[in-house]
Amino acid sequence: MPEPTRDPSVAARTRRAREAAAALARSSRAARDAGLQAFEAALDEDRATILAANAADVAAASSEVAAGRMTRALLDRLKLDERKLDDLKRGLTALRAMPDPLGRVTLATELDDGLALRRVTCPIGVVAVIFESRPEALAQIAGLALKSGNALLAKGGSEAARSNRALADALEGALAACGLPDGTLSLLTDRAEVAELLGADRDVDLIVPRGGNALVRSIQRSTSIPVLGHADGLCHVTVDRAADLDMAVAIAVDAKVQYAAACNAAETLLVHRDVAARFVPAVTEALRERGVEVRGDDRARACAERGAGGGMAIATDADWDTEYSDLVIAIRVVDDLDEALQHIRRHGSRHTETLVTEDDAAWQRFAAEVDAAGVFRNASTRFADGFRYGFGAEVGISTGKLHPRGPVGLDGLVTYKYLLEGNGHRVADYATRPFTHRPIG
Amino acid sequence: MPEPTRDPSVAARTRRAREAAAALARSSRAARDAGLQAFEAALDEDRATILAANAADVAAASSEVAAGRMTRALLDRLKLDERKLDDLKRGLTALRAMPDPLGRVTLATELDDGLALRRVTCPIGVVAVIFESRPEALAQIAGLALKSGNALLAKGGSEAARSNRALADALEGALAACGLPDGTLSLLTDRAEVAELLGADRDVDLIVPRGGNALVRSIQRSTSIPVLGHADGLCHVTVDRAADLDMAVAIAVDAKVQYAAACNAAETLLVHRDVAARFVPAVTEALRERGVEVRGDDRARACAERGAGGGMAIATDADWDTEYSDLVIAIRVVDDLDEALQHIRRHGSRHTETLVTEDDAAWQRFAAEVDAAGVFRNASTRFADGFRYGFGAEVGISTGKLHPRGPVGLDGLVTYKYLLEGNGHRVADYATRPFTHRPIG
Repeated sequence: MPEPTRDPSVAARTRRAREAAAALARSSRAARDAGLQAFEAALDEDRATILAANAADVAAASSEVAAGRMTRALLDRLKLDERKLDDLKRGLTALRAMPDPLGRVTLATELDDGLALRRVTCPIGVVAVIFESRPEALAQIAGLALKSGNALLAKGGSEAARSNRALADALEGALAACGLPDGTLSLLTDRAEVAELLGADRDVDLIVPRGGNALVRSIQRSTSIPVLGHADGLCHVTVDRAADLDMAVAIAVDAKVQYAAACNAAETLLVHRDVAARFVPAVTEALRERGVEVRGDDRARACAERGAGGGMAIATDADWDTEYSDLVIAIRVVDDLDEALQHIRRHGSRHTETLVTEDDAAWQRFAAEVDAAGVFRNASTRFADGFRYGFGAEVGISTGKLHPRGPVGLDGLVTYKYLLEGNGHRVADYATRPFTHRPIG
Repeated sequence: MPEPTRDPSVAARTRRAREAAAALARSSRAARDAGLQAFEAALDEDRATILAANAADVAAASSEVAAGRMTRALLDRLKLDERKLDDLKRGLTALRAMPDPLGRVTLATELDDGLALRRVTCPIGVVAVIFESRPEALAQIAGLALKSGNALLAKGGSEAARSNRALADALEGALAACGLPDGTLSLLTDRAEVAELLGADRDVDLIVPRGGNALVRSIQRSTSIPVLGHADGLCHVTVDRAADLDMAVAIAVDAKVQYAAACNAAETLLVHRDVAARFVPAVTEALRERGVEVRGDDRARACAERGAGGGMAIATDADWDTEYSDLVIAIRVVDDLDEALQHIRRHGSRHTETLVTEDDAAWQRFAAEVDAAGVFRNASTRFADGFRYGFGAEVGISTGKLHPRGPVGLDGLVTYKYLLEGNGHRVADYATRPFTHRPIG
């Protein structure tokens, strides 16, 4: 039997978020930064309540782990402690110090005497984020949304329901105390509410699903609201003929092993045939030492047989399209950079691609031609991340073609509008009169 | 009985466009500008053929007009002549002179010693444009696409089929002569091909429908490919208490009358009650002189009765949501700016909104709070246009929230990627080591 709903309806909350967004759009940086400061204070004041709520979530989750219905990794991500809350506070302090992302003039043109066009950054409006397990994500995302003047609807995972409620209460209290508009932050708790959210295309401007492929795909299929994110993270490490092979081994290991479940982990190595005989056995040995299962195409397996990497399993066509999210990797030997680029075009997910090479011309071509949010040289794919990029935090990583793309921080939570100021200017007068189109200093 | 298809399948052409896009992404500005110059030459060399093809389209369309199946306005838009082709050439020359939109570095950060992150503009990839009647749009859009390094799939209206084929032959010949990749431009001619196009989400990155609400909505519903455009253009002229009323009348007339079928024409006037008694009769008289039917709410009609504007029809709730695209306008009297902003939020289409006011504070609030691609002061909504903004031309106008927004020229046809260059950098080393996150000069 479902519990009686205490919260207002989703429709009422999205409408309230829309009203809040209008007020936030005209709020000052000082008002938004004061809200961030109040968030920090609330994380101290309500700390005992938050940790108690989290302890209850963790206790419930532990039974799930014991019963084999939840992984230990998920339980670790669920757990809050003093250190994580202090990190959260530091993140909010850093966010407060960042420049205001709103009101930046990115184009200014005089169209004619007294008629000035300016393109100015502004908030997107109402952003809905659907996130899983890590409750501290709620406070990070709430911080990014507030700094960028967006109203936020947040739906957390059921396993963190008590933690999220305690955090949201603390943050909402902080917003109210600062006089920031009601509706700036709203927590959705029920899975049924998500369906309503996906239909609220008049009042929600952007949906950010943070979660597995299935979640992202199902949301993309179920809404006409723009969805920011990525369903797949199928990243390659491409080892050029001119690669430093020790470096290539180190990068391949980092890209696969450092956190195999991450979307920016590598799934496939593409190896130039000229270096395959030396590289394939070396990388296979290094990966196996770290517990990775290595699969290969015929040429990779032949190389492995000649080295220490014998007994390599066959990589079939399906492997090239598989995001293992686990300690498994596939190796394909390619004839040249062209074949590698073709492979990436056909099988890549436009997330992050890295080329290991000492050849500047090969890199120039790779950089220009590879169609992905991140294109790297001599660096691990795992660097594709908002924190590592210096954005403070991220609401997600987008593999879409339009802005925002890649890790999405403050810059990705703003859009722009064109402001035109005249003095009674009418289009009819320009049938015969030219525009000046002069850049404004 | 359908004619046998001579063109390759849509799937073959979208794949070829994808391959062409990869080559265009690494093409030099010089190569793309040479293509534009070849476009200009082809418009001269093939001029007789193009005009003959257009004459055949116009002859066929004239019978349609005579039979009442096509409007004369559409026929006028279909017609090409020497002047229009010369204008096209001038537009291409201007485009050639514009700076390269590709390869601009919009962010540069050192993450650590020898690890440099750059955000660089790059083409979107494969863009599909569905356009109606005006055949010169094909050459304008082909120019914008080439300058920005995008492969283009273009589908024109059947009434301009011969003109579009002649233009496309000229442009494709120019591309081939310059050594630009096969697949850079492809003309789709059959309505059935559009359905295939909408399903080609692997090979098409962006769809731009230029046409009526019904076309745009049907495309938005039928594809998972991002759609750039606007279904509605419901723009308001808001007349503040502090408006110069003569100016307000002139702007209202221009915004309604100058081209009533345009998406940036005004559909509703929102008038502050303090000036309604003077403004409503004056604007009603001026609009009626230009053949406009004026409707009003109760307060507007009462004002009209007292002046020269008697006999005003009633505007019902449905009027506030109607894009007349014709010489009809509705007037609503509002209590204050708040009520006007509420009305715009509820009924506007986020296209273009203008406020007539001499009050800076009212403008500041309007500019910050109105959620639209264009927010104007003391200027006609009709200025919302790529040519008037100085973008050379536009592929369309977007009312979406993400980039591109507003009139879309070259800037809107590029996206970006993050390039990261290291020297064997691994994420594992940063468990204990901080990033520098230093801006690169």
